[in-house]
Amino acid sequence: MNYYAAPVARLIEEFSKLPGIGRKSAQRLAFYVLNMREEDAVNLSEAIVEAKQRTKYCSYCGNITDIDPCNLCRSEQRDRSMICVVEDPRDVVAMERTREFKGVYHVLHGAISPMEGIGPEDIRIKELLLRLQNVSVKEVILATNPTIEGEATSMYISKLIKPMGIKTTRIAHGIPVGGDLEYADEVTLSKALEGRREI
Amino acid sequence: MNYYAAPVARLIEEFSKLPGIGRKSAQRLAFYVLNMREEDAVNLSEAIVEAKQRTKYCSYCGNITDIDPCNLCRSEQRDRSMICVVEDPRDVVAMERTREFKGVYHVLHGAISPMEGIGPEDIRIKELLLRLQNVSVKEVILATNPTIEGEATSMYISKLIKPMGIKTTRIAHGIPVGGDLEYADEVTLSKALEGRREI
Repeated sequence: MNYYAAPVARLIEEFSKLPGIGRKSAQRLAFYVLNMREEDAVNLSEAIVEAKQRTKYCSYCGNITDIDPCNLCRSEQRDRSMICVVEDPRDVVAMERTREFKGVYHVLHGAISPMEGIGPEDIRIKELLLRLQNVSVKEVILATNPTIEGEATSMYISKLIKPMGIKTTRIAHGIPVGGDLEYADEVTLSKALEGRREI
Repeated sequence: MNYYAAPVARLIEEFSKLPGIGRKSAQRLAFYVLNMREEDAVNLSEAIVEAKQRTKYCSYCGNITDIDPCNLCRSEQRDRSMICVVEDPRDVVAMERTREFKGVYHVLHGAISPMEGIGPEDIRIKELLLRLQNVSVKEVILATNPTIEGEATSMYISKLIKPMGIKTTRIAHGIPVGGDLEYADEVTLSKALEGRREI
């Protein structure tokens, strides 16, 4: 038996689909929404659909953006001769927070993982090679996660790029191995960027 | 500086207004939404607005409902001569989960709290007295939270009801004092209901 009014039950159901939200949290959030001002509930609702509908991937770097090319790729202040390669759009945010990197990005949208059946052709590696052919690039910084998959992806990319005569670096292991770039603090990530070495 | 595309920043902002959702969780949820199928994002969005717009308070018991009177007040299976008084609509759900109570409810929407400036006239006490005058009621079970405010509210109501010759009971302290009815498990709450005593 369902103890909630139908629209409330539906909302609890929808909230509990979100990551890290169990039944109790979903119930708590739903009742919070019921007590919100209608205006605020509409804002939350619209923000969800808009974020989904108004964002796309930047055709240059693959970052999430509402305008193509993205702010970073359009900016006059960014050094286009340095490309930082990351796995996920969230990693761009993590890198930007260090305020150390003034180049541009390339988001792979994943890492090579034979276990999950993700090969080099499933992530945006060919788009990276295309960029390197079209624009003069001095350095590619490989900032994939320090996991087995991230390391393998970095190795794979470095082997493709080095013959092109482009300096290829890997961020230092300031970040604990097995960790996630997204959750690294600014200082650790800055250190990792500083201590990068040629591979 | 904001590192996110405007619609993403807005969504993170909206998510972080929800209770128990910090910046990191909000970011995680926002990126989860970005990776959702559009259909699922629309469902979540609609569920929020619908839950807010299609629900109201039952004019009998004050519970949250989409149809007035609510399912519980309309049901032929419920014993209208027993009223269980609770603070919050979530407490109705908690009581229903015990499957022990076959009467109807009265939701106060709060508890008397001089500290927060909530007096007896700010919660639905007069509506309860009106119900007791119009319908023949054998017993009123006071199931407010076992907190100072909940106890005070129960005492206040019992003093108003006893002169009307209606049996007035308080759920037993099976629930840990200082706890919250909403988070009590079914067994504890059943015990509390069983062990109720006249006050």
